[in-house]
Amino acid sequence: MIMSELRKDPVSGRWVIIASERSRRPNDFRRTSPAASVEPPDECPFCEHQESKTPPEIFAVRKRNSRPDGPGWRVRVVPNMFPAMERNVKSPAGKKDGLFIRRDGHGSHEVVIETPAHNREMADLPVDHIADILRAYRERFRSLEDEFPGHCIQIFKNKGREAGASLAHPHSQILAVPAAPLRVMEEVHGSRRLFRSRGHCVFCLIIRKEGEAGERLVHENSHFRAFTPFASRFPFETAVYPLRHSAFFSQIENNEIPALAGALKHILGKLQSVLGNPSYNLVIHTAPKPMRKRSAVGVVDRSYHWHVEILPFGSRAAGFEWGTGLIINPVPPEQAAEVLRAAL
Amino acid sequence: MIMSELRKDPVSGRWVIIASERSRRPNDFRRTSPAASVEPPDECPFCEHQESKTPPEIFAVRKRNSRPDGPGWRVRVVPNMFPAMERNVKSPAGKKDGLFIRRDGHGSHEVVIETPAHNREMADLPVDHIADILRAYRERFRSLEDEFPGHCIQIFKNKGREAGASLAHPHSQILAVPAAPLRVMEEVHGSRRLFRSRGHCVFCLIIRKEGEAGERLVHENSHFRAFTPFASRFPFETAVYPLRHSAFFSQIENNEIPALAGALKHILGKLQSVLGNPSYNLVIHTAPKPMRKRSAVGVVDRSYHWHVEILPFGSRAAGFEWGTGLIINPVPPEQAAEVLRAAL
Repeated sequence: MIMSELRKDPVSGRWVIIASERSRRPNDFRRTSPAASVEPPDECPFCEHQESKTPPEIFAVRKRNSRPDGPGWRVRVVPNMFPAMERNVKSPAGKKDGLFIRRDGHGSHEVVIETPAHNREMADLPVDHIADILRAYRERFRSLEDEFPGHCIQIFKNKGREAGASLAHPHSQILAVPAAPLRVMEEVHGSRRLFRSRGHCVFCLIIRKEGEAGERLVHENSHFRAFTPFASRFPFETAVYPLRHSAFFSQIENNEIPALAGALKHILGKLQSVLGNPSYNLVIHTAPKPMRKRSAVGVVDRSYHWHVEILPFGSRAAGFEWGTGLIINPVPPEQAAEVLRAAL
Repeated sequence: MIMSELRKDPVSGRWVIIASERSRRPNDFRRTSPAASVEPPDECPFCEHQESKTPPEIFAVRKRNSRPDGPGWRVRVVPNMFPAMERNVKSPAGKKDGLFIRRDGHGSHEVVIETPAHNREMADLPVDHIADILRAYRERFRSLEDEFPGHCIQIFKNKGREAGASLAHPHSQILAVPAAPLRVMEEVHGSRRLFRSRGHCVFCLIIRKEGEAGERLVHENSHFRAFTPFASRFPFETAVYPLRHSAFFSQIENNEIPALAGALKHILGKLQSVLGNPSYNLVIHTAPKPMRKRSAVGVVDRSYHWHVEILPFGSRAAGFEWGTGLIINPVPPEQAAEVLRAAL
């Protein structure tokens, strides 16, 4: 078990998860890079017939008559074996020591195993299989929302070692944490401020403008529009927005799921074609449900607009951005979109 | 010449530099990682006797009687050959197109060549040589502050390929940009808010507390105190603060410079001993000089406290933090400080 806690930077307000690893000795610090991401398939705990190597499954899309924790599944959700957050901690409340605020790591950390096949990436799966993954996301999101009211629930996928993956078998992760990540709050506060001054959702306006202008457009279908954002931080950064206004991913409707699956397959395929087999992060941005002020729910509901962010790993090795927050992107989003539109 | 512009994300307010590289063709995007950081020393433009390979020097610490752009220097500042910002752009003013705000990349981008020796890292230099580098930083900072009032001036060092360096020869960079990086503004706004509620500089309080508690203390001398921050984002992240309250790095005093040089040598040596030869980013955090409101100068002056941030590259390869702003740090700062204090 990894004990973890959250700490708040007293000046910036940024939360950090401190997850200390047991019994690490000074000499071990030289190996701080992630473990090699290529494990032999016969030892991979995420492969079919290896189900006993993970904790019992929480949810699965599996064949009728197949049994939990046995073969016959398509998508499988299990607890993370090295969780950053845990259900059984002493106190979910904050502890204040003068300027320093900390909280026990109360929450949940789950892994969505996207396919029984070790080498089948999301981009290679059929659309109906990707739709099953998205249904697993929604199912778990809704359950965690009920179990952890007030927590922030984050769905993300790290593909490839450069993007933070420590296992090669295609998987995503779901974290429920008792603090709101700064990046999410920047968007929530920014869009609320604009909603108050303009009276409408700023994302709805951006989605419409990007559709009209077309220069940053990558893909669109009946329910989703994908484009490279105006102020893209990274080459080929792509965002996918639902056309229907909705603040919460958990409210995605049944008929929207295959459309999102199709859009993701399309975009990931294009990125593969242009960038080779890129590492990337995929993140679902959704509004946290405000707990305290009932009136705030209505504003977030109308001002925020959930979306998917795909961040391919390219020139991102540059690291001074961590210190400054000022990011240099060598590929203009208009050029990236043009290349993606032309790609097979 | 690389044409660049700044763009502001309409929702979060984050500025990004879009520096498009000329005539890049679609096939080239597969190689988006930085160039190899090991060039043969006889081709290195930063080595002694290769001075003609850089643009004319802007500033140098050099032997009496030696000539500009010839050998005999210790520290040399030259324009970056691939600048992210340039002096000669059409319009330094912002351009607004509905929600989208952009600005031409008006400013400056300089390189501080820290030593004539190709393989001598900052940690290996004598303290008086590091002091010369710091004097070059201060000299250029003051000049750029005069030349670009209202710009944000950022001094940083990327050491090693993982940290973003494209050349191995030890060097730092100075950027003057017409926009305030979000990370800087988070700190400036956070400390101003705390100043208004508490009536004193929050950094001064933290520096005192860290000295008293001692569990995160790494080093201190007559003028500086170094510790691993309470909410450290990365393993072995270390901050160095002047004991004397001052918002602006450019106001560092002559007698403080050798003390900072000594602290940096001490900390970089410890990091080398614990982590091997780590890649790292070193960033000087200093308050931007407020231009418009004269009254605001006084508040920033009293509420902000400049400092140096050293971010070693370790488990930072994990990338989902880019999407969420939620960072998982596997090494508690108390443990990192203990290991650093014990290191030779």
